[in-house]
Amino acid sequence: MASKPATEPATAEGVTILGTGAMGSALAGELLGAGHPVTVWNRTAERAVPLATRGAAQAETPGQAVIAHPLVVMCLLRAGSVHDTLTPVAAELRGRTLLNVTTTTPNESRELARWAADHDVTYLDGAILAVPEMIGSPAAQIFYSGSREAYDRFRDVLDVWSNGTYDGDDAGAASLIDLALLSGMYQMFAGFFHGAAMAGFADLSATEFAARAAPFLAAMTEGFADFAGVIDGGDYAVPGQQSLEFSDLSHIVRASEEQGVDPAPVATVQELISRQIAAGHGSEGFPRVYESLRRPAAQA
Amino acid sequence: MASKPATEPATAEGVTILGTGAMGSALAGELLGAGHPVTVWNRTAERAVPLATRGAAQAETPGQAVIAHPLVVMCLLRAGSVHDTLTPVAAELRGRTLLNVTTTTPNESRELARWAADHDVTYLDGAILAVPEMIGSPAAQIFYSGSREAYDRFRDVLDVWSNGTYDGDDAGAASLIDLALLSGMYQMFAGFFHGAAMAGFADLSATEFAARAAPFLAAMTEGFADFAGVIDGGDYAVPGQQSLEFSDLSHIVRASEEQGVDPAPVATVQELISRQIAAGHGSEGFPRVYESLRRPAAQA
Repeated sequence: MASKPATEPATAEGVTILGTGAMGSALAGELLGAGHPVTVWNRTAERAVPLATRGAAQAETPGQAVIAHPLVVMCLLRAGSVHDTLTPVAAELRGRTLLNVTTTTPNESRELARWAADHDVTYLDGAILAVPEMIGSPAAQIFYSGSREAYDRFRDVLDVWSNGTYDGDDAGAASLIDLALLSGMYQMFAGFFHGAAMAGFADLSATEFAARAAPFLAAMTEGFADFAGVIDGGDYAVPGQQSLEFSDLSHIVRASEEQGVDPAPVATVQELISRQIAAGHGSEGFPRVYESLRRPAAQA
Repeated sequence: MASKPATEPATAEGVTILGTGAMGSALAGELLGAGHPVTVWNRTAERAVPLATRGAAQAETPGQAVIAHPLVVMCLLRAGSVHDTLTPVAAELRGRTLLNVTTTTPNESRELARWAADHDVTYLDGAILAVPEMIGSPAAQIFYSGSREAYDRFRDVLDVWSNGTYDGDDAGAASLIDLALLSGMYQMFAGFFHGAAMAGFADLSATEFAARAAPFLAAMTEGFADFAGVIDGGDYAVPGQQSLEFSDLSHIVRASEEQGVDPAPVATVQELISRQIAAGHGSEGFPRVYESLRRPAAQA
């Protein structure tokens, strides 16, 4: 087999983007900038016009868009629209790769992967941990799971957007990891708001509180690795840890109540700790809180 | 008035420490290392012996300890022990300064300040945001509130322990700010455990999850200042923000439930968001969650 001459220009992979909201437009825009042929479709056609003026082909129907390229990226605003869009174009999708970056739960992604398999479509799920402005920068994180073959084949496309990671063949894995990180983020934000509300009664403005809380919480993230080591090790009694009994949040809950700040978010954490102490694990390490979460409260 | 010659050695302030548990011992040990005369007392006398061998005077009673120096630091394990220790030595404390670093709620600190005022004792409250090993290092943070005069007079002692901050004459302020930061920390930790439990079902070990979560959450603390600016500005409708309606945690809650991970900690955050949307503020910015916390749920 003759090898291609090294001087032949590489042909940039063509990509179809279904859905050109803020995120879909960012994904398409970066590809156009990198020299990829791009075909776009959007339910409200006007929203795809800016991309068309930048060189994208604008398809009038999802079917026209799908047949243009081997890789079809679906980036819709609502998970509920996914099947409305896909079902009519199942025949056109046959033999192509569907990359779904619409925000879906892990089970919705798994269901989509089954639908794709039933229609001879290769399925890759993508979960974007970034706002649209971050696409194309190293700060954007995109997790992929599902078809490893698709991840490898279209790597030049994926690399335009971010340093992606492949998280296994469970189509739900990427979404699950993304939502797990977002869960941590929203809980941290709630912790910030709760702390700011408390500190407001010490005449600290939210800005003054943020100046103390941001470096403190950033530094405390360094403790995650130690907690994780204990969790993965499976022995919550290893020495050198802060015990659950010592992790007494009653001062915080009481102070919150005294000041008229709703203690709900920190009281929820206290309840997770109390559940382990009540089960006889009070002298074990704080990371055992993890065990309060691994099964629904009703079964604890 | 003749000024002292510059060559005269400064006399290091003597300090009494009531309570030599891990934290009290760390505070006393740093002072000894810096050349301060230190007198210690502990209910269980043996626990003060290591400090005595390092040069501390060991008092047999709280009264003996209190009269040794003008500054008396109280560092007990339980807030409930504070009055048991102080009431019998009220006469000896008269005219001295009491620095309380026992973990107390803001109202307990305020009550202690009133007791001190009634007994002609100058009161300063201290809240230590550090583990004992950090005392003496720049990583230790100690907040003070109450008597500004005491804070200024004993600054050379306080500076041995950390870069302290003075947070005003409300004796409860230091404790309140400390507990506010700890509230944020524990909620962030719960968020980490919750995320790790979810990601475990994507075959990610807790250690692998920590490697993604720690830099991500540390980076997200940079958003606190923007949230705080909106809160302090008082207008949650300023443009350029993520809206409450867009801050839809239902995917996270659903994914958590689907995997058998207790959604309670993130569902609590969702409830704080929902409360603002139900009140008609869905199009306003995410930082409005703060308003869900400023008054008890029953009054919202």
